[in-house]
Amino acid sequence: MRNTNHYGIAGWYAMRAAGEGLLGVSLTNTSPLVAPTRSKSPLLGTNPIAVAAPAGRHGMLVLDMATSTIPRGRIEVAARRGESLPPGWAIGPDGSPATTPEVALEGSLLPLGGEESNAGYKGYGLALVVELLTGILADAAYGPNILSLWSVAGKANLGQFFMAIDPAAVGGAASFNARLEGLLDQLTTAPLAPGAPGPVLFPGQPEAERAAHQSKNGIAIDTEHHDSLVELGARHGAVFPAARPIGG
Amino acid sequence: MRNTNHYGIAGWYAMRAAGEGLLGVSLTNTSPLVAPTRSKSPLLGTNPIAVAAPAGRHGMLVLDMATSTIPRGRIEVAARRGESLPPGWAIGPDGSPATTPEVALEGSLLPLGGEESNAGYKGYGLALVVELLTGILADAAYGPNILSLWSVAGKANLGQFFMAIDPAAVGGAASFNARLEGLLDQLTTAPLAPGAPGPVLFPGQPEAERAAHQSKNGIAIDTEHHDSLVELGARHGAVFPAARPIGG
Repeated sequence: MRNTNHYGIAGWYAMRAAGEGLLGVSLTNTSPLVAPTRSKSPLLGTNPIAVAAPAGRHGMLVLDMATSTIPRGRIEVAARRGESLPPGWAIGPDGSPATTPEVALEGSLLPLGGEESNAGYKGYGLALVVELLTGILADAAYGPNILSLWSVAGKANLGQFFMAIDPAAVGGAASFNARLEGLLDQLTTAPLAPGAPGPVLFPGQPEAERAAHQSKNGIAIDTEHHDSLVELGARHGAVFPAARPIGG
Repeated sequence: MRNTNHYGIAGWYAMRAAGEGLLGVSLTNTSPLVAPTRSKSPLLGTNPIAVAAPAGRHGMLVLDMATSTIPRGRIEVAARRGESLPPGWAIGPDGSPATTPEVALEGSLLPLGGEESNAGYKGYGLALVVELLTGILADAAYGPNILSLWSVAGKANLGQFFMAIDPAAVGGAASFNARLEGLLDQLTTAPLAPGAPGPVLFPGQPEAERAAHQSKNGIAIDTEHHDSLVELGARHGAVFPAARPIGG
């Protein structure tokens, strides 16, 4: 697909396929935010990879990950919290490691892995492969030629890639689900490393648990965020629901 | 594909597709060597991802990467050199970070990214997706159920996944090559970060340069390695070429 703009949550499309019993893949390129290994400039997007598959009693496996170590939003959170940044997350505009969120927001994210010595070139390679299957294959804009994130100077012309594989065409859907169920059983009951903050999770598991909780209990957001949504709603004639206390 | 054994270089199959003007993908599961995030046990393979595409005057883009931070062979090299290991590469059998190659070889590799705090769960997710498309989809052995690396106790029964996409079916092969050429131009001439050991490379570029050099000048290996090959050849009636000095 070409000539699109930000398509929201990459995993959502992969999950639509998995909801039909298929293995779903969804990729997109994005505005340049990530510096290729050795460069000081953001030339590639955070180019996410999303894959989903039906997993029997475990529900759904959903991997939905930026190919950068962390998404840009994580830097913004660090800025609000006044945190410093570990090495491998981002560089400043001069290409040196960014130790503060403020410097990082002026610079570039690093690809998954971080520094070259820690195999950051693999994250760079993955971002480039996503670019290959989206911007390049679909004849959309690509890499550094994509407009910056908040620009309204023209069309973003992003590219996307979608794939759905029917397990029934290979070895049978029922046995696919049973095998994936079996693997997730083995992973989620694996012996833990010392200091592990909880059991081994599979991709999509924490998000599914959170969604189930929020469906029942509502979505907790901070007061400042709620006030801004109420104000935005009022300005556009769409009433945003009033806040209620957590657990209320 | 199922019921196979180690298929050698994953990238070789992807390159065969790229040699025909196609975008090639080749995946395999492997014997368990990698600990999922939070676990102390090796439950997944180094499950490589290989993608290749024709890149005009740049030759071929070839990404061929294990989904662990480093391959097991890198630990063996560190052992021979007496090096210590940085955090994020491997853990010992008790799940603690391995700081020496000897402890790492008894334990597990960590997925790309390393520790959980450095997004190692993304590498774990990628290894799991490769497992999904190989062992699970092909009804081969999967995850911790695969025989260990050097075991001859039974069949390995690995699974593989191959895909070839014809750019001509989407937007035209010639323009695909031209766009990829353009992107690689932009990447390989990008402004460098301070201390960069050389220009920005694209995946497959150093390997192609080394192959061209070796085709002309021969392959440099250490004396010990050469002696072992000569000895192995003699034992099996296949004469291994005599050594000649480098540049000779």
